[in-house]
Amino acid sequence: MKNIAILGFGVVGQGVAELLTKNAAEVKRLVGDDLYIKYILDLRDFPESPFADRVVHDYAVIAKDTAVDAVIEVMGGSHPAFEFTMQALAAGKHVITSNKQVVAEYGAEMLAEAKKNGVCYHFEASVGGGIPVLMPIIEILRHNKVREVRGILNGTTNYILTKMFTFGDSFEASLADAQEKGYAERNPDADILGVDACRKIAILGALVSGASIDPDRIHTEGITAIRAQDVAVANKNHMAIKLLGRALCEEDGKVMLMVAPFLIDADAPLGGVHGVYNAVEVIADPVDNVMFYGRGAGAGPTASAVVGDLCRCFTEGTHTAPIRFEKEPERLSDFARFTAQHYIATDAAIEAVQAAFGSVTVLSEGEELAVLTDPINEADFEACAQKLIASGAKVLSHLRKLS
Amino acid sequence: MKNIAILGFGVVGQGVAELLTKNAAEVKRLVGDDLYIKYILDLRDFPESPFADRVVHDYAVIAKDTAVDAVIEVMGGSHPAFEFTMQALAAGKHVITSNKQVVAEYGAEMLAEAKKNGVCYHFEASVGGGIPVLMPIIEILRHNKVREVRGILNGTTNYILTKMFTFGDSFEASLADAQEKGYAERNPDADILGVDACRKIAILGALVSGASIDPDRIHTEGITAIRAQDVAVANKNHMAIKLLGRALCEEDGKVMLMVAPFLIDADAPLGGVHGVYNAVEVIADPVDNVMFYGRGAGAGPTASAVVGDLCRCFTEGTHTAPIRFEKEPERLSDFARFTAQHYIATDAAIEAVQAAFGSVTVLSEGEELAVLTDPINEADFEACAQKLIASGAKVLSHLRKLS
Repeated sequence: MKNIAILGFGVVGQGVAELLTKNAAEVKRLVGDDLYIKYILDLRDFPESPFADRVVHDYAVIAKDTAVDAVIEVMGGSHPAFEFTMQALAAGKHVITSNKQVVAEYGAEMLAEAKKNGVCYHFEASVGGGIPVLMPIIEILRHNKVREVRGILNGTTNYILTKMFTFGDSFEASLADAQEKGYAERNPDADILGVDACRKIAILGALVSGASIDPDRIHTEGITAIRAQDVAVANKNHMAIKLLGRALCEEDGKVMLMVAPFLIDADAPLGGVHGVYNAVEVIADPVDNVMFYGRGAGAGPTASAVVGDLCRCFTEGTHTAPIRFEKEPERLSDFARFTAQHYIATDAAIEAVQAAFGSVTVLSEGEELAVLTDPINEADFEACAQKLIASGAKVLSHLRKLS
Repeated sequence: MKNIAILGFGVVGQGVAELLTKNAAEVKRLVGDDLYIKYILDLRDFPESPFADRVVHDYAVIAKDTAVDAVIEVMGGSHPAFEFTMQALAAGKHVITSNKQVVAEYGAEMLAEAKKNGVCYHFEASVGGGIPVLMPIIEILRHNKVREVRGILNGTTNYILTKMFTFGDSFEASLADAQEKGYAERNPDADILGVDACRKIAILGALVSGASIDPDRIHTEGITAIRAQDVAVANKNHMAIKLLGRALCEEDGKVMLMVAPFLIDADAPLGGVHGVYNAVEVIADPVDNVMFYGRGAGAGPTASAVVGDLCRCFTEGTHTAPIRFEKEPERLSDFARFTAQHYIATDAAIEAVQAAFGSVTVLSEGEELAVLTDPINEADFEACAQKLIASGAKVLSHLRKLS
């Protein structure tokens, strides 16, 4: 029998406990042993829960119990999740997490500590919820030359954008609807400002490039500035708008990281990912492009990824492909060099836009003019936009296009 | 250094050799050792190839060389691929294959032989080309209760269907176009009659149910009977037609297997998979639905999957989740019990159709009548169709709908 401790008995923790109970036969067949939830750490008590007798309030009980084989950290936040994880790893316990914040910030330290102690630190559930994506990247695709990994990494914002596209609603109305349905939190900032997606792209970027970059340094835009007018222009031109995390591996070994809304051709693989679904696309040689799609959140899908990792601790153990995931801040590429076609909506006449940007493609005319520029980098875009503004015009909206 | 032998130097074999050369640094970082192609088995010589000096014509040379660590079988066909594989496994060599035919027919025997000898038998490339799908199912999703695995498993037929939907072309014209572009072979039967997809669903079905079923016993329909008129009706009703392999795990432990074209809502995940792309969708508790998407064929993608498996032989080795994959013919469910909505196009009047099928949904009227029945099983459908035919009407086309 293997003994498990769960840190945090919220939605995900309860999902894990339920899965280990309901699918106990499947888990046993896989692992060849019973998994027993010995402890649940939470500040609260759960008198109604079938696990009421396992609840403890002091982490020291778990840390010092040598019979605990694996710790499932589903507390969220960086502290004390980081300290608890380091203690568990140092004590020779496997650790599995769904906590993207702590992985994005301290993944390098925790992976090194796991390696030092000959145990596993797995975090499949931290990106894409139930979708198996990190492990396929690590184990099956890493001999490829990865050019880019990009994805729709946040279900809340994708739900809001889908709502705007389907019904022509405003961002505010769509956010209110998402909150009503429980897809967005009362304080939705971490989702709508791109913070959540930023942590996830930091993790994906580290896995494909080897360089773990502080999320605070990643260029991050949310979806709050997207207007119903932009959605209408996109729809008319058979495009979607998706909040993407992107990690581009450059020739010189640097990695370009960002989170921002992008215009996408509606027929592109990521263009067809709707509602609360997430998807991660890997572009690499020679596999070309592969995409992983599924539910990016929720108790069941997230618990599936956590328990998948847990089982792997007891089957593969540390017999896995080596992960390069190290703090190498100098490898972050300068966002000013990022090149794309830019979309702007403006009150200017086409002549003024051309005077500022050179040749452009008109997407829509009427009350506003909406155009796509030729591919230019961020620094040049900024200079051109300033020129347009200096001519007396307003930039009403700005997006980039995924090429 | 690890020594590799490649059996068969066709498109995939050459792709593997090229990948091991081009991405040697990535592979070495992953495996911690150089991989050296010591032998290439082929009937032909390749005097222009950089590997000309490795070509041998006699398998015995490879089989008896104890320095060969892994054999890559990319010959195709069941014989002598099966015998060569069994010899290599018995001699303690890992075997990796892209050969769906031999896996579908002899997977159980080869996996048992590998286990007996403490080596790996991996076959990621046999389904979905470069898409990592088998390994995620085996390693990350197997603690789920799988309800179904289904997919677009053949790029040639998907290209033909996409062409029919995009341009309204006939099946014959679309096949000719696919042949011209090199997506279909001169003798396209294995693709268009569903044989290739059948082998792949046999493999997927075995992985999720544990029961390996002889492909010959799986209900298999191709796409040759799909008419431009059916495509027009589907398009008008915002549906696609896709050739699907489906494996449904039933409550009683049986598995329902089939290959057939299905009507699908255009917005469903599989409905948006176009051209030569493949996709596999897994529906399971509690992960819900996840989908894997990418290039299902071609030298580069297939070589990626082969080399991914090869690397795993030297990293994880046999420290993997146990695979249940055994010949259990009694677990195949009776196709007559399979229940779905049926689409028919007919020259009958609606009254005659209702007299035969009861209530139906009209999809299109005019020269022909196209309807969807309520969900009924295959046996009942057959009886109703005979009743319609007995009334003097013709069934011009028949498809099922994915619910």
